[in-house]
Amino acid sequence: MVITIEPETPEQQIEAVIKKLNEMGFDVHRSTGVNRTVLGVIGNTAAIDIRDLKIMPGVADAYRITEPYKLASRSYHHENTVLQIKDIEIGGEEIIIIAGPCSVESREQTMEIAEQVSAKGARALRGGAFKPRTSPYAFQGLGEEGLKYLREAADKFGMLVITEVMDKDQIELVSEYADILQVGARNMQNFTFIRELGKAKRPVFLKRGMSATIQEWLMAAEYVLSGGNHNVILCERGIRTFETYTRNTLDISAIPVVKKLSHLPVFADPSHGTGIRDKVIPMARASIAAGADGIMVEVHNDPDHAQSDGAQSLYPEQFAELMVQLKTIAGVIGRKL
Amino acid sequence: MVITIEPETPEQQIEAVIKKLNEMGFDVHRSTGVNRTVLGVIGNTAAIDIRDLKIMPGVADAYRITEPYKLASRSYHHENTVLQIKDIEIGGEEIIIIAGPCSVESREQTMEIAEQVSAKGARALRGGAFKPRTSPYAFQGLGEEGLKYLREAADKFGMLVITEVMDKDQIELVSEYADILQVGARNMQNFTFIRELGKAKRPVFLKRGMSATIQEWLMAAEYVLSGGNHNVILCERGIRTFETYTRNTLDISAIPVVKKLSHLPVFADPSHGTGIRDKVIPMARASIAAGADGIMVEVHNDPDHAQSDGAQSLYPEQFAELMVQLKTIAGVIGRKL
Amino acid sequence: MVITIEPETPEQQIEAVIKKLNEMGFDVHRSTGVNRTVLGVIGNTAAIDIRDLKIMPGVADAYRITEPYKLASRSYHHENTVLQIKDIEIGGEEIIIIAGPCSVESREQTMEIAEQVSAKGARALRGGAFKPRTSPYAFQGLGEEGLKYLREAADKFGMLVITEVMDKDQIELVSEYADILQVGARNMQNFTFIRELGKAKRPVFLKRGMSATIQEWLMAAEYVLSGGNHNVILCERGIRTFETYTRNTLDISAIPVVKKLSHLPVFADPSHGTGIRDKVIPMARASIAAGADGIMVEVHNDPDHAQSDGAQSLYPEQFAELMVQLKTIAGVIGRKL
Amino acid sequence: MVITIEPETPEQQIEAVIKKLNEMGFDVHRSTGVNRTVLGVIGNTAAIDIRDLKIMPGVADAYRITEPYKLASRSYHHENTVLQIKDIEIGGEEIIIIAGPCSVESREQTMEIAEQVSAKGARALRGGAFKPRTSPYAFQGLGEEGLKYLREAADKFGMLVITEVMDKDQIELVSEYADILQVGARNMQNFTFIRELGKAKRPVFLKRGMSATIQEWLMAAEYVLSGGNHNVILCERGIRTFETYTRNTLDISAIPVVKKLSHLPVFADPSHGTGIRDKVIPMARASIAAGADGIMVEVHNDPDHAQSDGAQSLYPEQFAELMVQLKTIAGVIGRKL
Repeated sequence: MVITIEPETPEQQIEAVIKKLNEMGFDVHRSTGVNRTVLGVIGNTAAIDIRDLKIMPGVADAYRITEPYKLASRSYHHENTVLQIKDIEIGGEEIIIIAGPCSVESREQTMEIAEQVSAKGARALRGGAFKPRTSPYAFQGLGEEGLKYLREAADKFGMLVITEVMDKDQIELVSEYADILQVGARNMQNFTFIRELGKAKRPVFLKRGMSATIQEWLMAAEYVLSGGNHNVILCERGIRTFETYTRNTLDISAIPVVKKLSHLPVFADPSHGTGIRDKVIPMARASIAAGADGIMVEVHNDPDHAQSDGAQSLYPEQFAELMVQLKTIAGVIGRKL
Repeated sequence: MVITIEPETPEQQIEAVIKKLNEMGFDVHRSTGVNRTVLGVIGNTAAIDIRDLKIMPGVADAYRITEPYKLASRSYHHENTVLQIKDIEIGGEEIIIIAGPCSVESREQTMEIAEQVSAKGARALRGGAFKPRTSPYAFQGLGEEGLKYLREAADKFGMLVITEVMDKDQIELVSEYADILQVGARNMQNFTFIRELGKAKRPVFLKRGMSATIQEWLMAAEYVLSGGNHNVILCERGIRTFETYTRNTLDISAIPVVKKLSHLPVFADPSHGTGIRDKVIPMARASIAAGADGIMVEVHNDPDHAQSDGAQSLYPEQFAELMVQLKTIAGVIGRKL
Repeated sequence: MVITIEPETPEQQIEAVIKKLNEMGFDVHRSTGVNRTVLGVIGNTAAIDIRDLKIMPGVADAYRITEPYKLASRSYHHENTVLQIKDIEIGGEEIIIIAGPCSVESREQTMEIAEQVSAKGARALRGGAFKPRTSPYAFQGLGEEGLKYLREAADKFGMLVITEVMDKDQIELVSEYADILQVGARNMQNFTFIRELGKAKRPVFLKRGMSATIQEWLMAAEYVLSGGNHNVILCERGIRTFETYTRNTLDISAIPVVKKLSHLPVFADPSHGTGIRDKVIPMARASIAAGADGIMVEVHNDPDHAQSDGAQSLYPEQFAELMVQLKTIAGVIGRKL
Repeated sequence: MVITIEPETPEQQIEAVIKKLNEMGFDVHRSTGVNRTVLGVIGNTAAIDIRDLKIMPGVADAYRITEPYKLASRSYHHENTVLQIKDIEIGGEEIIIIAGPCSVESREQTMEIAEQVSAKGARALRGGAFKPRTSPYAFQGLGEEGLKYLREAADKFGMLVITEVMDKDQIELVSEYADILQVGARNMQNFTFIRELGKAKRPVFLKRGMSATIQEWLMAAEYVLSGGNHNVILCERGIRTFETYTRNTLDISAIPVVKKLSHLPVFADPSHGTGIRDKVIPMARASIAAGADGIMVEVHNDPDHAQSDGAQSLYPEQFAELMVQLKTIAGVIGRKL
């Protein structure tokens, strides 16, 4: 951390700042320039509330010179993290497609969709068993029954299962059926919950909160990593902006940004990111073109009668066409699919 | 719900829309104008995903003509809701001030602050026992011990206790000590959790999520109300915008907007809304001037050594001065304090 | 426009609404349903301030059922608009790449960059002669001299010239040298200026304002079109969001959205959209993958010594590599480059 | 400016950074700590593009330690600037109320409103003669005729005239009639225009752009000040956020923030900031409570038939009541009205 001092600040105020830092357990390196005095704070300052220093008399400003996260950063771990789950590698050369319905609605629906998407190259099956809904009056999911259908379908077609865990009480149950635990955007900063995921036995698929900065998102990953679970996949799914034509604004630029800051795999979810079916396909292509390690996309065998998110679910034939396009784009950037 | 049809839409497409609505259990009132056909959907459409209709062939657009929340709306309950908690009324003529430290740090600190703020007119004591922190490396709170200190201090000085519940497992424990259960901004859309609060025995103080629209905030209140808990207080605490000088942008205009849309009491939290001590006082005044039923403000006996949020905590003497100012402003709009 | 009436509204209030609309010159179609009365307003309501109706007693809400723009909409003009400028088609099958420096700095620099980018397939040369700068203390451009260099370089290498016009007084001068007049994001809602562009003899390249909704952007295009200039190209260049890691958030999803709403060609500017060189390339690929008709990208022969925006300018060899990638991506979606 | 160097950076990269800064004309103070090397850049760095340094090999980050504006800052000019215009002081002890219609519609309307608002204490008359409208099909103002009505009405009732200048060609004409030149939010970053205002003979009332940070707003003021016009008044009028219930989100917290950063007077415009009449009054109170030096508010003698912005215009009797409330609130913070 670097602290700059206002011009003409009395010596005793500068000393008060140094004393406070010393009390907090930090050494301070003082550099007195022509115009400005600058204090360098030595040590891990991640737990300091920077505002406590900014409001001290004589302090012009204070800046962190290291990111507040550590385990998630590329400076801590230079190489890309590649997760090996069963026979599938996430974050490696192959781009991984996760597909499936928004909600698990029935055994038949799940089997049918799994068959269709795996035939076209999807490696993991998604589907919600517990549904967090904005309205208390909407469909809330099949629960454990839904988890069973997912597992059965995935096993039959050689896929992984990924599904959302909404609460720490569900971690154990969902871990019995799923290969990857999804954390929804609304839970990204539910710290009691994500801390528990640090002890979970399954990889965590961490969606970016709708109003989370990239730094906050990586801090949420840090919670999981610092709890001992080193298997975290990040997923961009749209941020809230003033534009309301799309449900959210899929922040495609976050993909190359996070790939540089962190070693963790980065996915995108164009279905929730746009909320409109005919925008899902171009945004899926854009995500891969921008360097995502994979995408999560909603596909339904009968979107017109889906229990939830039908409007953003692809028809199986649209998914098939998308896969053909993505294969070529993957090649452009030295990946395969 | 009103659905407008594109000009020159074939009759069979219009009929497909009507059929879909009928299958969902709604009657449809068709009105064929010179330029446009308009369909009126009759019944409670809260659970419809409006996008399912918007993407149908021939549909120009679809609009809800009733708000998706009901119990929270002023059209359902015309009069202001006034909560009676012990001898204190919230949402009545009196403006209620909630004050206290960010975190409960010790018995002594809690007693001292409670004495100071109650002497100046604060009616409820705030303080965090379980702390959700952005960094996994920061102070995480005293837990149940903190709750005991809050209760003891509040009882001694005739105050209510309000403190944050972070998880459904904590509801019962916190309810033993607290008079009001606070839901943090990051949990506002944690639906499994807020649904549980619908069964809690204590009133809920529901902070607005950082990226929640006013409608989503009222929908979150609806979750609690529809569970059977009719005692909800709303609290504006700042939204995320592009401006970074303040931690958040306290949306003062949300106060009169929500007072019109809903019968529930509305508070503001200028401490979290700004994050900077010298901005708290003007924003506290502005909140009351805009019609808030009360404010929640952080006060610390020794902000320079606070475990958390010291930079936004008022000194006791600043709080005293603020209370004098607020009393006059309350009078301007026919309230008292 | 559709106006919904509150339940139990007295007849005279409904009549007052109808009367007001009649006075404004509109016919009203009244439809009285079981729950709600709905008024349909017949005629071109683009000039109505919808709030004037929303605040009338008895009115529940009012909605436009047609977009406020007309000439810019795809319902007015179904086919894609293809601009023929000299021997180059914009908006046709070929994807058009506009490249060049942020600022024109010298004749030599301009010639060198034009040679490099045209050799790799760029069809138009960009470069600022008049520079709008956030700081009054920064480089402000070469003026007319810069325009001459652009024209000379473009002519030599068979390219079009596109450059920013900052003011209506400059329209005539810039039109002498440039083939396309660029309107910067900060001028998108400078209505006196864009109205003048409706009379200009050159096509207009209209960048989206940093906080402009898609609808406002199309309304700005409408200003130009309604003045008689039918040659407008839209360019997404990033919107302002809470995320500050990138200078702006390039709204890639706006590309397919606008392609559906409007017949006008849509470009993207990944240089200004991200502000960081190593993010420009992935975002350029993403823009084409999402369906853009072209991109505008900053390339400099010596970015380390550029007078402005060096940090977001590509090196010529990066541009060369990007062009190879874009060619393949173009093929994926049935375009060529 | 402070530049921090990555750990383990080769000496030659550090020297390259120092060399670049020297070439730009800056002295560099190097401080080699235990963990980090930090470079302090000496001199006025306002014109540096900070990204040029951030992307150099070995640079961890770069931070400005002085604001990029100078003349607008309180550190340049400690005391509040008080403008004396005729017999009225702006920025002094008295809170100044500017009131009037959105558009000047007729001589009669202007005279009537001026009489009503001056009788209640308004010191300046507002009104648009040239109207920038989102739609090319809406009312565009009376032009010079409107300016004459404003002048006549203001003179009769002892008020100042403030009106918007939309273009540099209008500066001279408007200056003949108006005492204060208003710059609209959409023109705040129209740099060719605001530079011209630096030479204008009238004070400038500079509205904050809808997506302008506080720093950009002060940079716009710097443009005017650095041109030689020392009379600038800032006006907060709402920023664009995701919340759409109000037209914009009036950023009340910007008022105390700017009062601290700058010596210039700060106003608020609750009419444009909310766009809804019944929200204007609480937000006007909140603005004064937060420390604004005045407000600009739309009042119309017949809002139901206003040519523009009727929905956000106060009735004269509402304005009268508001003035009574504001007088008391002004007293709370040691001001008068």
